[in-house]
Amino acid sequence: MRYKMLDLLRVGLLFTLIGFSGIGVAGTDNPDFEQLKKNYYDSHPGKGSHGAYWAPIPIQKYWNPKDFYKPPKTVQGEFGRNDCISCHEAATPGAFHAWKNSVHGDLAAIRNLPDSDVRAYKKQKLAEVEANLAKQGLLKQGQRLDQVGCIDCHGGVGKETVNHAENLVMPDRAACGTCHVGEFAEAESEKNQEWPQKQWGKGHPSHAVDWEANVENTVWAAMPQREVAQGCDMCHYQQNKCDGCHTRHSFSAAEARQPEACSTCHNGVDHNEFENFMMSKHGTQYQTLGKAKWNFEVPLKDAIAKGGYTAPTCQLCHFEYQGDYSHNLVRKVRWAFNPTPAIADNLGHSWFEDRKTAWVDTCSLCHSASFAKAYLDAADKGTIQGLQVEQEAKKVVTQLYEDGLLVGQKTNRPAPPLPEKDAPAGFFQLFWAKGNNPSHIERIHADMWEHDVIKHYKGIFHANPGGFTYTEGWSNLMKDYSEIMDENTRLRESAAQAKIAKASVNSTATVPASESGGSGLGLTGLLLIALGLGVAYKIFGPFGKKSEADEASEEAK
Amino acid sequence: MRYKMLDLLRVGLLFTLIGFSGIGVAGTDNPDFEQLKKNYYDSHPGKGSHGAYWAPIPIQKYWNPKDFYKPPKTVQGEFGRNDCISCHEAATPGAFHAWKNSVHGDLAAIRNLPDSDVRAYKKQKLAEVEANLAKQGLLKQGQRLDQVGCIDCHGGVGKETVNHAENLVMPDRAACGTCHVGEFAEAESEKNQEWPQKQWGKGHPSHAVDWEANVENTVWAAMPQREVAQGCDMCHYQQNKCDGCHTRHSFSAAEARQPEACSTCHNGVDHNEFENFMMSKHGTQYQTLGKAKWNFEVPLKDAIAKGGYTAPTCQLCHFEYQGDYSHNLVRKVRWAFNPTPAIADNLGHSWFEDRKTAWVDTCSLCHSASFAKAYLDAADKGTIQGLQVEQEAKKVVTQLYEDGLLVGQKTNRPAPPLPEKDAPAGFFQLFWAKGNNPSHIERIHADMWEHDVIKHYKGIFHANPGGFTYTEGWSNLMKDYSEIMDENTRLRESAAQAKIAKASVNSTATVPASESGGSGLGLTGLLLIALGLGVAYKIFGPFGKKSEADEASEEAK
Amino acid sequence: MRYKMLDLLRVGLLFTLIGFSGIGVAGTDNPDFEQLKKNYYDSHPGKGSHGAYWAPIPIQKYWNPKDFYKPPKTVQGEFGRNDCISCHEAATPGAFHAWKNSVHGDLAAIRNLPDSDVRAYKKQKLAEVEANLAKQGLLKQGQRLDQVGCIDCHGGVGKETVNHAENLVMPDRAACGTCHVGEFAEAESEKNQEWPQKQWGKGHPSHAVDWEANVENTVWAAMPQREVAQGCDMCHYQQNKCDGCHTRHSFSAAEARQPEACSTCHNGVDHNEFENFMMSKHGTQYQTLGKAKWNFEVPLKDAIAKGGYTAPTCQLCHFEYQGDYSHNLVRKVRWAFNPTPAIADNLGHSWFEDRKTAWVDTCSLCHSASFAKAYLDAADKGTIQGLQVEQEAKKVVTQLYEDGLLVGQKTNRPAPPLPEKDAPAGFFQLFWAKGNNPSHIERIHADMWEHDVIKHYKGIFHANPGGFTYTEGWSNLMKDYSEIMDENTRLRESAAQAKIAKASVNSTATVPASESGGSGLGLTGLLLIALGLGVAYKIFGPFGKKSEADEASEEAK
Repeated sequence: MRYKMLDLLRVGLLFTLIGFSGIGVAGTDNPDFEQLKKNYYDSHPGKGSHGAYWAPIPIQKYWNPKDFYKPPKTVQGEFGRNDCISCHEAATPGAFHAWKNSVHGDLAAIRNLPDSDVRAYKKQKLAEVEANLAKQGLLKQGQRLDQVGCIDCHGGVGKETVNHAENLVMPDRAACGTCHVGEFAEAESEKNQEWPQKQWGKGHPSHAVDWEANVENTVWAAMPQREVAQGCDMCHYQQNKCDGCHTRHSFSAAEARQPEACSTCHNGVDHNEFENFMMSKHGTQYQTLGKAKWNFEVPLKDAIAKGGYTAPTCQLCHFEYQGDYSHNLVRKVRWAFNPTPAIADNLGHSWFEDRKTAWVDTCSLCHSASFAKAYLDAADKGTIQGLQVEQEAKKVVTQLYEDGLLVGQKTNRPAPPLPEKDAPAGFFQLFWAKGNNPSHIERIHADMWEHDVIKHYKGIFHANPGGFTYTEGWSNLMKDYSEIMDENTRLRESAAQAKIAKASVNSTATVPASESGGSGLGLTGLLLIALGLGVAYKIFGPFGKKSEADEASEEAK
Repeated sequence: MRYKMLDLLRVGLLFTLIGFSGIGVAGTDNPDFEQLKKNYYDSHPGKGSHGAYWAPIPIQKYWNPKDFYKPPKTVQGEFGRNDCISCHEAATPGAFHAWKNSVHGDLAAIRNLPDSDVRAYKKQKLAEVEANLAKQGLLKQGQRLDQVGCIDCHGGVGKETVNHAENLVMPDRAACGTCHVGEFAEAESEKNQEWPQKQWGKGHPSHAVDWEANVENTVWAAMPQREVAQGCDMCHYQQNKCDGCHTRHSFSAAEARQPEACSTCHNGVDHNEFENFMMSKHGTQYQTLGKAKWNFEVPLKDAIAKGGYTAPTCQLCHFEYQGDYSHNLVRKVRWAFNPTPAIADNLGHSWFEDRKTAWVDTCSLCHSASFAKAYLDAADKGTIQGLQVEQEAKKVVTQLYEDGLLVGQKTNRPAPPLPEKDAPAGFFQLFWAKGNNPSHIERIHADMWEHDVIKHYKGIFHANPGGFTYTEGWSNLMKDYSEIMDENTRLRESAAQAKIAKASVNSTATVPASESGGSGLGLTGLLLIALGLGVAYKIFGPFGKKSEADEASEEAK
Repeated sequence: MRYKMLDLLRVGLLFTLIGFSGIGVAGTDNPDFEQLKKNYYDSHPGKGSHGAYWAPIPIQKYWNPKDFYKPPKTVQGEFGRNDCISCHEAATPGAFHAWKNSVHGDLAAIRNLPDSDVRAYKKQKLAEVEANLAKQGLLKQGQRLDQVGCIDCHGGVGKETVNHAENLVMPDRAACGTCHVGEFAEAESEKNQEWPQKQWGKGHPSHAVDWEANVENTVWAAMPQREVAQGCDMCHYQQNKCDGCHTRHSFSAAEARQPEACSTCHNGVDHNEFENFMMSKHGTQYQTLGKAKWNFEVPLKDAIAKGGYTAPTCQLCHFEYQGDYSHNLVRKVRWAFNPTPAIADNLGHSWFEDRKTAWVDTCSLCHSASFAKAYLDAADKGTIQGLQVEQEAKKVVTQLYEDGLLVGQKTNRPAPPLPEKDAPAGFFQLFWAKGNNPSHIERIHADMWEHDVIKHYKGIFHANPGGFTYTEGWSNLMKDYSEIMDENTRLRESAAQAKIAKASVNSTATVPASESGGSGLGLTGLLLIALGLGVAYKIFGPFGKKSEADEASEEAK
């Protein structure tokens, strides 16, 4: 779902007021877990500012355990580490075996890796985890971690027992961050992103605030269909948990380094990055050579030299910034979620220019800088070309709304439920409909700005030719534009006819038939009506002309 | 294609009349091949009840060999086992090598497997096959099967020669079942499924009756374009053959355990299970960890403990019922092919409740029962929410049809060819069109109930967020709904205008101009027409209101 | 993008005039590089005949280096072979490592392959390359090639240094062809293809002239949005370079033998071959068995016997002709890019029949000839059935255009930019739109002939059931047809109303109110208007009838 600008500005303000402490990416080198955790909880929105309009349904306790999780009462008692295993090996064998075969399930296997093994870097990682725990007093200085068992995550690190019905925990970001402090700090540092012209609220859009974006979204809060709405949570929970990429209970780094790990959320009508990647030459290299030969156990920084990568994955480009790899994925964000005039008009600003330079460096892992620069320039311009089509259509739809001419607008347009507000081609119209709200062309326009333009932009930046020429993007913009223009002409022709008719009625009404020598005057009006469009044109001129003239002055969305 | 309810009830009745002998799943433990075979042929519909309306085209002899296959006359003579090989190694090398490298081509390799091999279970399978053949007198007691050669399947098990032009056989389910009696019995047991409120005919929907569903489908039988229609057969042949999943001539179990084996049929607009699986976390685990590490040679029951599965495949969930794995895939079916009020209104019945409990057990292979319950509850409710949108649109379209207001309905609506019958937004309108049958919004509604709602339901149950929120399902329901509402408003406005006009004509007609003091009265009517919508609204009120009011009382589709 | 027939005929004529020397496939056995190179450059269109209408943007120097590439001035100096490596190992590590691990980077590894290795055929290939170079004087007779280094391709084969700012080269087909003469000859031989009834210009459609098809396309040349237009080049550059299939800098044959290698270009709305393949049984075999077991290092001719293929890839069928495998992919082309009446009506011609026979042979690698024949017959007929639906819709749209009845046609239909020309449902309307050009149903018809029919045809020929029944193809043809028929009825009803109205005005105008006994005569006309459709029908009959009657006589597109 898309973040609403106004809400986010409000939220951005909130951040400023609560004095968010500003853990920069630089600050992730020696992060303090307690401070990180405090900031994490302090900045978590819980139910958000529209909380009065919705109530959580049971499944949501898994998408946001911090606020909604309560242990089930079905299993009573205090259980130790071996109890967990002896019961869950039978009760949930998939979870058990995934854990058992994971790094968490066998830390000794990591300790025993020869230095030549590509996974040997995990030995250093393990030492860091132990140091983190020692610092927090959860491990004695010099003590080794034997295992990461069920209770460590579902009860508390280092605890020996847990009361299943009272204290069972579904881990949140801070739970994983207890051991993985550096990664937690990296991921949380996304919240510090600030846009130079306030195109987005602070920290947005990013994984670190995606739950906030969810609950602050007005139509999400407004929808009566809570079971459909919770579908949004199924991606918008990265702020709450880490298993969106490192699926429980393997928590595999190798999994999370493969493009499919991103695909559950980054696919489809308004963020088809996965499809674009897979169809690009990058993706076809991944599928033909990568699946067979590349080693995903290798850390990203060594992917090319040691992992055999001959093309990028999602992760290789988006985790990188000036040669550094981190869980902060927004350091090179420019167009972000969707193209808007507020971004298009400011690309020359140093904030955007510097990030473009960083992108040229990234592409230069494989391509010449001159190729990278030429391609990124083309992508910027091509994106703007798509945006212009959408903006022209927007004016037409907005004007019809302002003129009250949309189908059913005056007779059958219910307001959306609170806290949503009515608007032409509003985001809410993708998820809520009643009577003639939205009218068909509003929905077409909503598709243009939320689907077509985004796919156009994602297609061109991910180097998928069909993704921004004929299959998605541009060609669909043309199609939707033409449908809107058709409707504009029809609606304005009808309105013109009705106006003439009305004029005729008025003139007839003021001149009694008897006085006018029969119905002569009335007839004049009626004949005009009868002639319809042809005459209307002679009076008002071509209806499409207006939008063409308006086109020159483009305004921010 | 979708099964037609009425036809199936008829077929269900037929089943009852012919006294189908009721091989239950329980009955698959010690199945009798001869009885199975008899039931298989007795219950096979052949050309079905609409057979008079269509003639098979040549390719169909391969989709339904039982009824249509005749050996080609191009190769004459009686050939032995070695003849087949010596000719077909050159004539059809792909088929030859596939067989040669298969289990059928080298039974000795199976016999020699060490017990530690994950495929060792096939030794037991082979013993069972030998016992089955011995029981039928096709193998001497204690005799070993050397090979499954060409003639065994294309001539008859154990035969030494075949007359290529006279007796060549294309194997059907019973041919495979001769050796694989247990699997045959499992698969055929799908025919015993009975729905508590007769939502579907007996055995439907299932692989075991999918050919029947095909030939009993009225538009399939009616379509003049037989080469397009036979495209349906290309999936609807599971009742006839086993190579839909175990592709000839490998007949691989490992192939059939992978999701792609299901994908040729289970993809696309009205059954996008494959896409939903692949985009879900289940599917991404399969793609990132499964393709590289899971062992598909392992039988499903050992998939987690021995095969390394960390997530389900299609097969792991749909072949399972209460811990038992079988080729009967309908034992946990609830919403089946598509959501309907007849299912939605009866979910509280024990038949549905028991199956939901069985699903909770399945999900508990990996998830907690409380998670599983919460998710399935959300999926049920979310599915119903989608269905309600479609049902509201259905009322609008049906009412337009009853009022004769659809575009071209009175002037240019040819009837579909027999045995199909006209109906608003009928299934046939997805596959046949002429003049203004269907009108555009009928087709939009057909898309809603046959595509949008189904994808919505499949998306939510397969845990693919975009599959039921924004990319498929809900958001498309909103879009299609809004287009139908637009059209409803337009058509009723036009009709209202025409009605006023008519009224005016009548009043004018009854009052001669000379008597009415000029054309005063006629003018009143005419002016009303001229005012158009505005006036019409004042007289009739908002046109959309009706459907809103009707909404409360929902009726079965 | 689709090639324009007229332009191509013109180009074909050009070919004839310049005396293209006719390197047949037979002529590829002992090709002469110098003659090949001459022909390659002589027949290259450069900017093409519409060159005056567009200027290249920077990125295009990479899609067509021959005409547009200039080395960057950022790196000055003369550099040797080791300089390239020492700099680019750091500057573009991805390119460096891809090359280093490739055959080019280690020819010794090829020389040392045992004859039993499936890649041993590359030893012979290497000897051929050395012979080719010796013949051109680029290698001494008997001298061995040590390495194919950066300068060989980016400076000139065998050169020791290159001036980076002056002489750096981006390789074209001829550059690769210097060593790989046989492959170059095969690929270039596509230009010799001639269609028996001039359905396409000489050599079209093929990889060998795809850049020509691009620049001769009028809307591509006309589009003001050059950054969008260059997206077409991103596939239409095979005429210019070889790395569309053998991605730089691996240049892997194993990569190019896998279906994904084709997918960047052969996917989407007007050439969804990849999707169809993947969903077919062929593709699911590739995904379940192929990815795990088939050996893509094996040359295509040994794919089945030695590579373990149990199903075809794109390459296995399309590179093959009568048992010979070649880079000429058009030797079995019949329906080519898209179904047209000019092909449908000539399938009985020996040119088409012979190619169908060649296809039966290809399918017989795995299937019986009788199966292959039956399937291909069904595919031909099914394709024609789809084409007929599109042609009926075409008549309706064309007639509306000729009658001037399309929405906004008389008031708001700007002409497309030069060199494009206006036409109903023209190809350009997929990529350019302004005001009411195109009207919505023109675009729907453009989708029918450019998307639906093509997907229908590709779906049935690639044996993907959903690809030509319900998900793509036929069912979409039905939907688009019904929308066009709806619109036809509406527009003609409106026109009929307006005509009556006009008639009424005229009659009123000629009979002064005073003389007509009030407004009696005028009223007659007005009442007719008021009655609208109902009356119009009585006068003109059903509007859809015309298109039905016309249907019998089908004309070439």
